[in-house]
Amino acid sequence: MNTRQPAAISVSFRGFAKRGGETGHHSDGWGIAFYEETGCRVFIDKLPACSSPLAQWVQNYPIKSQVVMAHIRKATQGGAGLANCHPFQREWQRQAWTFSHNGHLVGFSPALDGAYRPIGDTDSELAFCYLLQRLRQRFANDGMPDTVLLAQAIHEVATEIAQFGNFNFLLTQGDLLFAYCTSKLHFVLRQPPFCQVDLVDEDFSIDLHKINDSHDRMAIVATAPLTRNEAWQPFVAGTLKVFTQGQLSWESPVVPVPYFAPLSDPSQ
Amino acid sequence: MNTRQPAAISVSFRGFAKRGGETGHHSDGWGIAFYEETGCRVFIDKLPACSSPLAQWVQNYPIKSQVVMAHIRKATQGGAGLANCHPFQREWQRQAWTFSHNGHLVGFSPALDGAYRPIGDTDSELAFCYLLQRLRQRFANDGMPDTVLLAQAIHEVATEIAQFGNFNFLLTQGDLLFAYCTSKLHFVLRQPPFCQVDLVDEDFSIDLHKINDSHDRMAIVATAPLTRNEAWQPFVAGTLKVFTQGQLSWESPVVPVPYFAPLSDPSQ
Repeated sequence: MNTRQPAAISVSFRGFAKRGGETGHHSDGWGIAFYEETGCRVFIDKLPACSSPLAQWVQNYPIKSQVVMAHIRKATQGGAGLANCHPFQREWQRQAWTFSHNGHLVGFSPALDGAYRPIGDTDSELAFCYLLQRLRQRFANDGMPDTVLLAQAIHEVATEIAQFGNFNFLLTQGDLLFAYCTSKLHFVLRQPPFCQVDLVDEDFSIDLHKINDSHDRMAIVATAPLTRNEAWQPFVAGTLKVFTQGQLSWESPVVPVPYFAPLSDPSQ
Repeated sequence: MNTRQPAAISVSFRGFAKRGGETGHHSDGWGIAFYEETGCRVFIDKLPACSSPLAQWVQNYPIKSQVVMAHIRKATQGGAGLANCHPFQREWQRQAWTFSHNGHLVGFSPALDGAYRPIGDTDSELAFCYLLQRLRQRFANDGMPDTVLLAQAIHEVATEIAQFGNFNFLLTQGDLLFAYCTSKLHFVLRQPPFCQVDLVDEDFSIDLHKINDSHDRMAIVATAPLTRNEAWQPFVAGTLKVFTQGQLSWESPVVPVPYFAPLSDPSQ
């Protein structure tokens, strides 16, 4: 989620968490990153999101954030354990970057120069480290680069990594939300007038008009739509989009990537 | 806390959290890092520990860990906010290192080579980044160095930083707990036979015999003793100790450091 004004994720997280072992079979841990006014914090747990006491706490405690990134995991590479839970986080440009991946890379073993090295043993964290390494090599380490140049660079590295497999990912530093798709990713933009939405994953509706005000704008990106009655749009494989202030601010041209069958939905 | 067998911190955290705004005046946020079998996770909050719903959750949910590091903050440098909450975390040697500081550095502005840069604006995170930078320069990045060589190197850098002010800190990667003192730090070793302990910060006792077994060993390090009836030992200023498997495994010689009056107790 990327918003113009800090908002609580509670509603959207509600259905999402159920996919972690209840309405979906992604039961090998979960994680969520919140970017609040004053910094970033990441909660991770190796229990299934649907039954994790921490997930329950997160769901019931409204943390107002301008960016939230949540992930439920189905282990395909790397054991089930905290070190392998997404989102992963690293510092670049004096900012806290977080990354979540849905997919599966095969034979991906890039040379790492040591700037970023994975702690766990997933293909996902390795890809994140390599991506940041490439950005660090490309841009001076003295302040955020121009957004379009940065997005183009991320798209280029993503295209490269996508040669090794399915590589849908989300990346953010709390202001810009980068979303890249190789197989399956959807987004929806919410703005006034807000309507009532019905969650896909449970018999629950909420009137967004009641919890948002006329200045609110928000973008939600997810593997599969979270609500039934909103205009979720699919990403085209091989594209990167940038969301900021709750709106779509940039999108890449399509750079075709090899077809890899999507993993069971949603995946890793 | 450093233990031989994973243990829950609940009891010790109970009194500690009260110092975050109730029995102490460290009310500018708090944080806690858990090292569980499969990785590390850090919880931080900008609310006072004594009234934080997250602190309440952590206190009531037993997370079994071999190392736990908790911090309550009184802001002296850097605003109150998530980015300035300890423990800070960074990767080195493919491990998640966390760091907490109690003190205050003045005029400390080391040259950073870019390997680690602070996200927030505290002297503490800057010192952590510089310390890891020096270790990275000193040791090959291909596996954990010999513990004694590493401890000696940490002590050397700590002594250097301590020229700039009060610099009590805790540092760990989940196996080794490094504790350095320039003004005030205490530790206690718990092993069978376990006794009943009385918390300093509230009218509460617990029989450690009932919650531990004959194989348990644990070391607790804190600015000020957390219990009344245990043999807490003060650190000598200018020393570094290493705890592992719940025992004191190495201690440095005393290298005198300038005297800086301790901040209000416990500090930052």
